[in-house]
Amino acid sequence: MSDTKPIRLGMVGGGNDAFIGAVHRIASRIDGGFQLIAGALSSTPEKSIASGAALGLVPDRTYEDFKAMAIREARLKDGIEAVAIVTPNHMHYPVAREFLRRGIHVICDKPLTSTLADAKKLVKAVESSDALFILTHNYTGYPMVRQAREMIANGDLGDIRVVQAEYPQDWMTEPQDNKQAEWRTDPARSGAGGSVGDIGTHAFNLLSFVTGLKTEALAADLQSFVPGRRLDDNAHVMLRFDGGARGMLWCSQVAPGNENGLRLRVYGAKGGIEWDQEDPNKLWFTPFGEPKRLMTRGGNGAGEAANRVTRTPGGHPEGYLEGFANIYAEAARAIRARQADEPLPPEVVFPTVQDGLTGVQFIQACVTSSSRNSAWVAL
Amino acid sequence: MSDTKPIRLGMVGGGNDAFIGAVHRIASRIDGGFQLIAGALSSTPEKSIASGAALGLVPDRTYEDFKAMAIREARLKDGIEAVAIVTPNHMHYPVAREFLRRGIHVICDKPLTSTLADAKKLVKAVESSDALFILTHNYTGYPMVRQAREMIANGDLGDIRVVQAEYPQDWMTEPQDNKQAEWRTDPARSGAGGSVGDIGTHAFNLLSFVTGLKTEALAADLQSFVPGRRLDDNAHVMLRFDGGARGMLWCSQVAPGNENGLRLRVYGAKGGIEWDQEDPNKLWFTPFGEPKRLMTRGGNGAGEAANRVTRTPGGHPEGYLEGFANIYAEAARAIRARQADEPLPPEVVFPTVQDGLTGVQFIQACVTSSSRNSAWVAL
Amino acid sequence: MSDTKPIRLGMVGGGNDAFIGAVHRIASRIDGGFQLIAGALSSTPEKSIASGAALGLVPDRTYEDFKAMAIREARLKDGIEAVAIVTPNHMHYPVAREFLRRGIHVICDKPLTSTLADAKKLVKAVESSDALFILTHNYTGYPMVRQAREMIANGDLGDIRVVQAEYPQDWMTEPQDNKQAEWRTDPARSGAGGSVGDIGTHAFNLLSFVTGLKTEALAADLQSFVPGRRLDDNAHVMLRFDGGARGMLWCSQVAPGNENGLRLRVYGAKGGIEWDQEDPNKLWFTPFGEPKRLMTRGGNGAGEAANRVTRTPGGHPEGYLEGFANIYAEAARAIRARQADEPLPPEVVFPTVQDGLTGVQFIQACVTSSSRNSAWVAL
Amino acid sequence: MSDTKPIRLGMVGGGNDAFIGAVHRIASRIDGGFQLIAGALSSTPEKSIASGAALGLVPDRTYEDFKAMAIREARLKDGIEAVAIVTPNHMHYPVAREFLRRGIHVICDKPLTSTLADAKKLVKAVESSDALFILTHNYTGYPMVRQAREMIANGDLGDIRVVQAEYPQDWMTEPQDNKQAEWRTDPARSGAGGSVGDIGTHAFNLLSFVTGLKTEALAADLQSFVPGRRLDDNAHVMLRFDGGARGMLWCSQVAPGNENGLRLRVYGAKGGIEWDQEDPNKLWFTPFGEPKRLMTRGGNGAGEAANRVTRTPGGHPEGYLEGFANIYAEAARAIRARQADEPLPPEVVFPTVQDGLTGVQFIQACVTSSSRNSAWVAL
Repeated sequence: MSDTKPIRLGMVGGGNDAFIGAVHRIASRIDGGFQLIAGALSSTPEKSIASGAALGLVPDRTYEDFKAMAIREARLKDGIEAVAIVTPNHMHYPVAREFLRRGIHVICDKPLTSTLADAKKLVKAVESSDALFILTHNYTGYPMVRQAREMIANGDLGDIRVVQAEYPQDWMTEPQDNKQAEWRTDPARSGAGGSVGDIGTHAFNLLSFVTGLKTEALAADLQSFVPGRRLDDNAHVMLRFDGGARGMLWCSQVAPGNENGLRLRVYGAKGGIEWDQEDPNKLWFTPFGEPKRLMTRGGNGAGEAANRVTRTPGGHPEGYLEGFANIYAEAARAIRARQADEPLPPEVVFPTVQDGLTGVQFIQACVTSSSRNSAWVAL
Repeated sequence: MSDTKPIRLGMVGGGNDAFIGAVHRIASRIDGGFQLIAGALSSTPEKSIASGAALGLVPDRTYEDFKAMAIREARLKDGIEAVAIVTPNHMHYPVAREFLRRGIHVICDKPLTSTLADAKKLVKAVESSDALFILTHNYTGYPMVRQAREMIANGDLGDIRVVQAEYPQDWMTEPQDNKQAEWRTDPARSGAGGSVGDIGTHAFNLLSFVTGLKTEALAADLQSFVPGRRLDDNAHVMLRFDGGARGMLWCSQVAPGNENGLRLRVYGAKGGIEWDQEDPNKLWFTPFGEPKRLMTRGGNGAGEAANRVTRTPGGHPEGYLEGFANIYAEAARAIRARQADEPLPPEVVFPTVQDGLTGVQFIQACVTSSSRNSAWVAL
Repeated sequence: MSDTKPIRLGMVGGGNDAFIGAVHRIASRIDGGFQLIAGALSSTPEKSIASGAALGLVPDRTYEDFKAMAIREARLKDGIEAVAIVTPNHMHYPVAREFLRRGIHVICDKPLTSTLADAKKLVKAVESSDALFILTHNYTGYPMVRQAREMIANGDLGDIRVVQAEYPQDWMTEPQDNKQAEWRTDPARSGAGGSVGDIGTHAFNLLSFVTGLKTEALAADLQSFVPGRRLDDNAHVMLRFDGGARGMLWCSQVAPGNENGLRLRVYGAKGGIEWDQEDPNKLWFTPFGEPKRLMTRGGNGAGEAANRVTRTPGGHPEGYLEGFANIYAEAARAIRARQADEPLPPEVVFPTVQDGLTGVQFIQACVTSSSRNSAWVAL
Repeated sequence: MSDTKPIRLGMVGGGNDAFIGAVHRIASRIDGGFQLIAGALSSTPEKSIASGAALGLVPDRTYEDFKAMAIREARLKDGIEAVAIVTPNHMHYPVAREFLRRGIHVICDKPLTSTLADAKKLVKAVESSDALFILTHNYTGYPMVRQAREMIANGDLGDIRVVQAEYPQDWMTEPQDNKQAEWRTDPARSGAGGSVGDIGTHAFNLLSFVTGLKTEALAADLQSFVPGRRLDDNAHVMLRFDGGARGMLWCSQVAPGNENGLRLRVYGAKGGIEWDQEDPNKLWFTPFGEPKRLMTRGGNGAGEAANRVTRTPGGHPEGYLEGFANIYAEAARAIRARQADEPLPPEVVFPTVQDGLTGVQFIQACVTSSSRNSAWVAL
């Protein structure tokens, strides 16, 4: 990882107690690629100010309102070059729009938006801006996920036949009243999907990223097991891909014993791979008719795609924050290239607004299919 | 395990090279509960004779034909008390019928029959016979499967919400021409289901046995990935259970790196369990809000249901053959009770002809749903 | 596994409640290679009779005394051809002697004897007898142990440098008063070693069997942690092998959380292997500079040595009883060859009286070294 | 983790290609607690300059020589407050001395020094300085290591009886000529220990930190397996602790298939724990007589000591860099407290110069014992 002059970064959302804001800050810092200098950290002005102070922002760069921040920072000589958006989902579009239209690069949490209409408008906003838009589907940043993608692209598995993706959690097994759960179970802020939006999109993005397959249609059965819950907390989905491959996707927030059990298994005519987010430094490669092989990050068998996002030698585990930081590192390279008017290096990969749109379409299709008694719905 | 006077056993099918016949013979022998003394081991007379000799059967008790065997053994003073049927699926009904009508107890491999019509006739044949019918859904014989069932019945998981069952294999990843594969891919002998019949029924039986849930309906998407294959080699199934629980079931014979990956995960309002056939001496119990607990066969936490089918202390692994032998051990206890005109001890549990009928209905529903573009089909 | 005419077997020891007696009986039965027809099952005459009846032995072949049994069985036309000795250690020699001198083959539990003097006498007794002597160091019967041995003999690991063996248990963490513990902690019946005799010898035998290395010397530190215990319940041992390789061996009966954690790791100049008795169907092979490979019993990569002692396909786990039964299967082949005056097939492998002597020397060396403040003691 | 005004940091060593320098830089940055502003990054002036530029240091703060750096930085108004020393071992003492005597806090890599004489001088240098000395035995920073330590201090395991520590690697299986290997195998720069110094000290420090046990004596058998190697590349050590507990320690750089297999197992009269550095977010707790419990970082069962050094929720794995960063985070708290003339908060824990001295004594004792044919040597 290079140590370069940091990009000036702002943040919208992510005030005290917001889990994902802290994650974005650490991820932006690990490689020294960004420096946080401005923020509109909460929708409540006082909390925004207090959070800014706690993060060491100067008062002058702590805003009560994201629009005011966009306007002023765009005018400052040393204004922010990029902004991280870590608000609840329904604010992603309105916030991103203000920065994009002023040429400030946007790094935005997922899912893209809370509605399909917003998602489409955001795609247009990106298209009509000179600024870049990076969506933090962070699991694509793990080195062994890159390895899996490279191997499939190389044909090591042969034609893909079967994809099994899952993302079980357990934290909503009982009714929750904390802040994390509150907005995630509110359709107005989260969107039409509950677990499918919050974690199903991660699983879907991961399988799409790794396999390169385009999803043709899906059939879904969504449930809300906890009484009073307004959005799904468990979802069963069958998938059909262009070219004939088939898949299943399960996500759940009510599966006791599971923390963040994102897991992907892909099988082709020549071999398979298996990856587990909770043990992310390993990748099983199972060529048909041969002993299973355990490939390790930084270790034997890891190829170029994995190694270029690797910081420590094999056996010194990297984790969630390093994977997340890889998205930021790619963002930094892309932003510097754009600023220098250079083409983006071809090996730099990050989730785009288009991936985000596909994710919102996935959520919508799940909800639609489930409401039609699991009929197949095209994506 | 008690060492008792052995039950006189015959076998139909299971000649040289037949994997499952050898398994039944070992399973019948482990506890000394049965002694094999007669057989019609092949549909080819010469192979039948040769196989009988290889197994040490006296020529007089080696038959060229199962019907002749049934007739004569029923008349002998020391004729067989029970018969094991290990033929291809389409022969289960005609063979079982001959023995049942002569009062000889039947231990039959799964799935019950190759057609639903045969399954229903077999149910009637059992009902009108004094003899017992035991179906070797052998995975229900594993001690930690019994443990899981007992815990769920005790309410340790609370109301069941989500069931995830899977059974991936890889041996049919490429076209096969061995004997094992040949009849399993022939609709005339195997029935309408390929992977759903051969292994999907095991996963379905296991989840039904452990959870006690009755399946209300299913939606299935079946595929034949290998060119020329006439039956499914991969199946994706969504399940709805009486009472509102939901499930997914995946079975595959084309998933490289998987040998016999039968795995069951069940989640309720209070906790979950996870069990893996390839590591069968362990059972994860995950009470919500507490550290995960690893329970072991013969070890701490194992209860009465597991212990009564346990032979060796914890840490001395039991395997597939011991689990299979537990079905035979239950069969022996049941047969001796029936012969003594005593009621079956309530703790003796084995898969019945009714379970077999449900399994064939499962196969049929999968095929029907898949042909209707995955519409929900009642079971 | 062949199904052959069973060898007539007797048993000394192994009455009611004796764990290892039941194991020997099952192991002898799995392949149909032996039939138990006589026994002197306890040192208490009444218990001996009762145990015989419970096992279905005819009264005429149930003996109150092992010597009487040896004398009479040797004279009977259909007398036993082999005897299994499953008594406490101090009786192994006197019992074996009586049967060996009458030409009855002996299958004996480990360790060989309770004293080195007895061990040497037993070696002579075997040398002067026509009968075979098989020691049930059963862990050498596991298929993947055979695989490891074959790979090392083939040079797949290069010159061996480092051996790590361990066998932790926890059942004696607190004072025990059950029968299993009672004689094992009594020097008069168990010998000079506690944990080193009961389980250390297994680890030592396993590492010797797999690597083929001869131990030159050892340095040991033995402890008795539980107050009042007269023999070691934990032992730390350093090993030096002929040719320069080095090793460590740890055995313990006071390590909470360990059931039968026998584990072997061997490293050479070109690669390593790792095997764990509690997960015995797998063998890690780690060629230097390549991804780790997981080899499975019955699966890809398993070679001839493993396959000939394999009963079920990959993914259908075999366990402790099958591994134990492989010792009996080898014994059966050896006995039949000896009876036919044929040479033993070269691939038939079983632990011998010489291995047993080495094991007793190992125990003695551990005790001696520990008493000399861990000085190196030649073996 | 708090985001506070960063401490001004310098670095000695850690130029281009030095693995551990990059690790220190990331660790210092993750929580925003430090900002690197000065360096003498190489013993070669040109490399020092080039490395400084690559890291974005201003030329004015890039030094050719560590002494010049200490002198000048101590005089600057905005001079460094702390220095990270990441040179080969033999330079730790001379470098540390220069900064300590000028009141600059020192964060130093392990082992403390290359000789026992230097170690003792360094202890004195620390004692006579107002500045703090923090040794980066980074594995003590992992949350679940803190958890294990807290549980043992709480008595959850009862009196400790047995400690098993190991740290196998494989990277020196064959002769190496890269820079990492070069100085580590040179006695002049590395000290008397090879593997015992480089990784054995980590294992020893970890077991001491977690158990709180003081080592009374050790017996060691050191080997150099690779021809021409001047220092040990494999070491077997037996340990005796004050109070009667016993232990074993194995470290190796020639064990193919092992990357950084640091693993600790501790057993007491009431229970055990097991921890593996390559899977650091998990801790097994095995109370005697109960099912094993898997505790997770950020998850159920994690206590105060773990939670205060935890950044992400359970199931989002933290890794080596986060554990390392926890040492830096503790250092930052300690430095700020010292600067404010406040007592160090009691929960702040980091490895001290005294721990470093004990580590060098451990190395020396291993070498001495091995040269005396593994005689017990007091520590």
